[in-house]
Amino acid sequence: MSGSLVSAGLVPAGPVSFLDGVRLVDHHCHSVVAGPLDRPGFEALLTEGTAPAPGTSGFDSALGFSVRRWCAPALDLPAHTAPDDYLARRAELGPDEVTRRFLGGAGVGAVLVDHGLAPGTLLPPAALGAAAGASVGEVVRLEAVAEAVADAGVSAAEYGDALVEAVAVRTADGRHPVPVATKSVLAYRAGLDVDPTRPEADEVQKAADGWLRRRAATGEPLRDPVLLRHGLWAGIDTGLPLQLHTGFGDADEDLHRSNPALLVGLARLVEPLGVPLMLLHCYPYHREAAWLAQVFAVVHVDVGLAVPYVGPRAATVIGELLELAPYGKVLYSSDAFGLPELHLLGALRFRSALGGLLEHLCATDELAPADAERVATMIGTENAHRVYTRMPV
Amino acid sequence: MSGSLVSAGLVPAGPVSFLDGVRLVDHHCHSVVAGPLDRPGFEALLTEGTAPAPGTSGFDSALGFSVRRWCAPALDLPAHTAPDDYLARRAELGPDEVTRRFLGGAGVGAVLVDHGLAPGTLLPPAALGAAAGASVGEVVRLEAVAEAVADAGVSAAEYGDALVEAVAVRTADGRHPVPVATKSVLAYRAGLDVDPTRPEADEVQKAADGWLRRRAATGEPLRDPVLLRHGLWAGIDTGLPLQLHTGFGDADEDLHRSNPALLVGLARLVEPLGVPLMLLHCYPYHREAAWLAQVFAVVHVDVGLAVPYVGPRAATVIGELLELAPYGKVLYSSDAFGLPELHLLGALRFRSALGGLLEHLCATDELAPADAERVATMIGTENAHRVYTRMPV
Amino acid sequence: MSGSLVSAGLVPAGPVSFLDGVRLVDHHCHSVVAGPLDRPGFEALLTEGTAPAPGTSGFDSALGFSVRRWCAPALDLPAHTAPDDYLARRAELGPDEVTRRFLGGAGVGAVLVDHGLAPGTLLPPAALGAAAGASVGEVVRLEAVAEAVADAGVSAAEYGDALVEAVAVRTADGRHPVPVATKSVLAYRAGLDVDPTRPEADEVQKAADGWLRRRAATGEPLRDPVLLRHGLWAGIDTGLPLQLHTGFGDADEDLHRSNPALLVGLARLVEPLGVPLMLLHCYPYHREAAWLAQVFAVVHVDVGLAVPYVGPRAATVIGELLELAPYGKVLYSSDAFGLPELHLLGALRFRSALGGLLEHLCATDELAPADAERVATMIGTENAHRVYTRMPV
Repeated sequence: MSGSLVSAGLVPAGPVSFLDGVRLVDHHCHSVVAGPLDRPGFEALLTEGTAPAPGTSGFDSALGFSVRRWCAPALDLPAHTAPDDYLARRAELGPDEVTRRFLGGAGVGAVLVDHGLAPGTLLPPAALGAAAGASVGEVVRLEAVAEAVADAGVSAAEYGDALVEAVAVRTADGRHPVPVATKSVLAYRAGLDVDPTRPEADEVQKAADGWLRRRAATGEPLRDPVLLRHGLWAGIDTGLPLQLHTGFGDADEDLHRSNPALLVGLARLVEPLGVPLMLLHCYPYHREAAWLAQVFAVVHVDVGLAVPYVGPRAATVIGELLELAPYGKVLYSSDAFGLPELHLLGALRFRSALGGLLEHLCATDELAPADAERVATMIGTENAHRVYTRMPV
Repeated sequence: MSGSLVSAGLVPAGPVSFLDGVRLVDHHCHSVVAGPLDRPGFEALLTEGTAPAPGTSGFDSALGFSVRRWCAPALDLPAHTAPDDYLARRAELGPDEVTRRFLGGAGVGAVLVDHGLAPGTLLPPAALGAAAGASVGEVVRLEAVAEAVADAGVSAAEYGDALVEAVAVRTADGRHPVPVATKSVLAYRAGLDVDPTRPEADEVQKAADGWLRRRAATGEPLRDPVLLRHGLWAGIDTGLPLQLHTGFGDADEDLHRSNPALLVGLARLVEPLGVPLMLLHCYPYHREAAWLAQVFAVVHVDVGLAVPYVGPRAATVIGELLELAPYGKVLYSSDAFGLPELHLLGALRFRSALGGLLEHLCATDELAPADAERVATMIGTENAHRVYTRMPV
Repeated sequence: MSGSLVSAGLVPAGPVSFLDGVRLVDHHCHSVVAGPLDRPGFEALLTEGTAPAPGTSGFDSALGFSVRRWCAPALDLPAHTAPDDYLARRAELGPDEVTRRFLGGAGVGAVLVDHGLAPGTLLPPAALGAAAGASVGEVVRLEAVAEAVADAGVSAAEYGDALVEAVAVRTADGRHPVPVATKSVLAYRAGLDVDPTRPEADEVQKAADGWLRRRAATGEPLRDPVLLRHGLWAGIDTGLPLQLHTGFGDADEDLHRSNPALLVGLARLVEPLGVPLMLLHCYPYHREAAWLAQVFAVVHVDVGLAVPYVGPRAATVIGELLELAPYGKVLYSSDAFGLPELHLLGALRFRSALGGLLEHLCATDELAPADAERVATMIGTENAHRVYTRMPV
C-alpha cells in the first residue's frame, strides 16, 4: 500500500515513514455518497456548514486545497488541478471508480462505520469496506435507535425498556457488519454540559410522554436531555466502547458546549465500570481531551475530522494532542463523510503528520527508532484492537 | 510600498512575498494620539492593561521588543535601539512626522476607523487616512451612539426609537468619512453570553428608565443587557456589516465571556438575514471563531490586535486561524490604538506572517504559486471589498 | 552547573544557551518520595491519573520517553534505556543517591516547596534543598491549615478567627524554612468559578458549623466555597504572594472550571491591594493566563507541571505563554511531585525551551543578544526575587 502511494505521488518520496507500513484502523467514519456530485453538491461536502458563503468557494480552504493537491493525482490529474477540471475528471470516472481509488489508497485495514446519519444516500458499509479492502464494523448511533423506537410506535411507559431492548438487538454480536461500539451525538442534541447521571424510570417515562407526542406531531428529533441520558446509559450498559461526538461539527451544535472537558462528570461515573469512552474529534479542545485521557483509564481520544480538514496543519494538532495524552490512549479516525476524498486525506495526513512527528523526535534523539515504530503501530492500529474487543477481521 | 519597506530595512530582503504588493484594507483600527508622549504615556499604550506592573517595563514584552526592532529603523535608528533613545528620537521628530512615517510605511489602501473610543485625544480619522495615504471609512460604535442619545436628553419611552434614528443618522451614506459598518463592544459591557434575541419595546423602555436615571446621576456607561441588545439589533437593521469585539482586550472584560463561540446563537438569528458579522481579534479563541466562519455564511474573522501584540508569533496565530476558516472569510485588521507604531507593526507582521505561511505552503508543494497569490489578495484586500459594500475609494 | 550538564550529556552540546548560567528559582514544587519505588509505584507518578490504564504503560507518553532519554544518563545509563533496566539501576543506586543526582543536576538556586500534600511519604523540604544545593522557602497551603484547625478542635463560632490566626502563625517570618507565600487549591475543591468576594463572619460561622460536623463524622476535606474563600482572603491578608492552582492537575478537578480566566473577578479585587497572585501551571489555558498577567499588575504566571510533562513540546507552550505575557511577569516552576526526575526534567526542559526560543529570536534578529540574556535572567530568577520579598538565601 505505502509503496503504491509513493509511486502514485500521493506521499512525498524520501525515507520510509514509521506509518508507511501500518494498515490503519479508522475507528470512526461514515460512508460516501453513492451517486454523482455536481460542483455545489461537492462543495457542500467540503465544509461543516451547508454551503460556502455567497461569493466564496469551498475549494478556497485548507481542505479544498488539500483535495486539489493530494486527490487529483489519484484521478491521474496533476497536483493543484483547478476545481472544474477536477470535478470533470471525477464525473468521467464515475462514483464507483472514484470511491475505489480513494478508499483503496487510504490503506486502512478496518473501518468502523457510523451509518446512522443520512444512510439513504450513502454506500452501504459493506460496499465501503469492499472498496477499501478493509474489514467493517458498525458503530450504533444511539439517537437513531431511539428515533426508530419512537417511530415504530411505543407508549411512554414502554419507551425506556423498548430502547434498551432495541440497543441490545442492534448491538448483538451475530449481526453483520459486527456492531463494535455505540455512539452518542449528545453534543449536537443537548450539549455535553447535561447532568451525566442515569435518569430514573419515572423521569424517562415522563420525558418520553412529551417527546413521543411532539415527534408524532412534528417529527422532532431526540433532543430531550433525560432521554438522551437514558440512551447514553443504555449504550454504556452494553459494555461496548461508547463513542462521543465532541469538538467541532456542523452548525447544529454550540461549539463551546461540545467541549470534551464537560464530560468529566460522565468519566467519573464510568471509570469504575471500565467501559471505554472514545472522545471523537475533540478539536479545538484536544488538549483538554488529552488530559481526560491521561487521568481516566476509560477515556480515549482522537483528532478525527480535524486531520483531513486542517490540511498540512495536522502535525501541529496531533503534536498538541500528544503533549498530555498517553500514547496508548490515542486512536486514528478520519470521520470522513460523503466524499471518498476524505477517507484518503484522513489517512494520508495522519500518516504524514504522525510519521513526521516521530521522525523529528528520532532526528532530535528524543525517541529511539524502535520506540517510534512501536508508537506508530500502537496509535495506528493496536490501541483500536485492544479497545474494540469485537474488532472485525 | 513594499520596495521602500525592504530598502528601509523594515522587511527582510529576499524573495518577493505574496503580500508585498498588496495594499491592505485595515478593516478595523483606531486613530493615534495627536500629541507627544512621555515614557509612561508610551508604555501605557504598549499594553491592554493601564500600565506596566511596578518594577517591570512595557518594553519587555513581545510587543515592546517588536517596537525596538521594527519601528526604530523607520525613525532612522538602528534595530534594537534602547527605549530611552527610541523615545528621545520620537520626541525629536514630533508626533506628525512620526505618524506620517509609521502610517505611510504600513502600506494600507483603506482604513476603517472606530473613532468612538477616547476621540478627544486622537487625530481625526481624515488626518489618519492622509498620513497613511489611504481612503477612510467609519465604523460606528453603537454604544457610543446610545450614550450620546442618552446624554442629549430623551425619555425612557422615546429611547428605543431615538436610538434607532440616531443609528440611521450616524450610518447615512452621505456622511464623510463614509460609515461602512456598525460595531458593538457587548463583550466589554455585558459579555457575549447574553440572550441574543431582539428585545421587545416594553423591555427596552423599562431598561431605559433605569439606565437613564443612573446615567444622569453617575454617568454610568451603557451596560444594561437589554439596551445593548437593542443597540445590536439597531445595527443589524441597517444592513451594514456588524463588527463585534471578541477575544482579548483590556481589563474591563471577562476574557472567557468574550469567547466568540458564545455568539453562535446570534449567528443563527442573523444567518437568514445575510448581514455580515465581523468577529474582531478572537484571540485566543480564534480556532473557535474559525469554526463559526466555516459553518455560518455571515460570519467573518480576523486576528487583529493579536497580530501586532504577539510579535514574531503572528504566523502561528494566523496558521491556527486558517485551519478551519475559509480563506474567503478572513480579513486583515491591526486594531491599532494610540500608537502609530501599531499601524506599522500590524501590517508588517501580517504581511510577513501570512506571506511566510503561503511561501511555506508553496515550498512544500501544498499550494500552487498562482493560488497563493490569489489567497494573499483575497485575505489582504478582496474579502473586505466584497463584504463592505460602501468601501471608500 | 551547566558545564556539568553538558559534559554529562544531559543537554545538547553546542552554543552556550542564554539559560545555561542561570540558577533557576523553582517557585513552586513539592518534595520527592523518600523511599524506594517499584514499577507500578514509579508509573503512578508519571501521570496525573492514579495509574496507567490496563494494557498501557506510563512510560509510553511524552513524560515517560523524556525520563528514558534525559534521566537515564544521570544514572550512568544510555539514553532510551528500557523501563525495567532504568528502574533496576534506580533501585541499585537507592533513593538518596538518585535524589542527589537529579536534584543536583537541576541547577536550581532556590526551591519554594508546597509540603501540604501527602507530606508523610516525602523527604522533608530541608533535605530536598540540601540535595539540590538550593535554599528553601515554604509555600503554605491554606486548605491544609484549615483542615488542621478543624482537626485541632474548634467551634464554628471560633473557626473564622482561628484560621486567620493559624495562617499568621504558619506564615510567621521566623520559621524555618521561611514561609514565602500562601497557596490555594480552590480549583480542586470548588472550582475557580466561585464568588471571589470575602465572606462575612456570619456566613463563615454557618458554613463552619456544617463542615466541622461533617469532617468529624466522615473526614470530609475542605470543599465548602464559603470557607475556601475565607481561607483565600486570610492568605491575601498576610500580604505574601498567593499561589493558585490553575489548569491541569489530577482527576479531582473539573479542568474547565480550573481555567485561570475565571479568576478575573479575584484579580480585580486584589489589584488595588498589590498582593501578587501567582497563577500556577495554567496549561492548557496559558494564553488566557498570559492576558491576565498583561492587564493586571498583580498577576504572574508560569507553565510549571506542563514543562516536564509535555516533553520536547515545552518550547511551544512557553512560546504561546510569551505571546501576551509581559516578560517581567513570567516565572519558572517545575511543580515536581514525588519523582526527583521531575525536578531535573522541569529545569532541563525549561532551559532548553526558553533558551531555544531566545536563540531563535536572536538568530532571526528579533531580539538583541544582550536583551535575550536579560530576559533569561529575568524569567529564570529575577522575577521571583522581586515578587517573593522573603526569598531565602
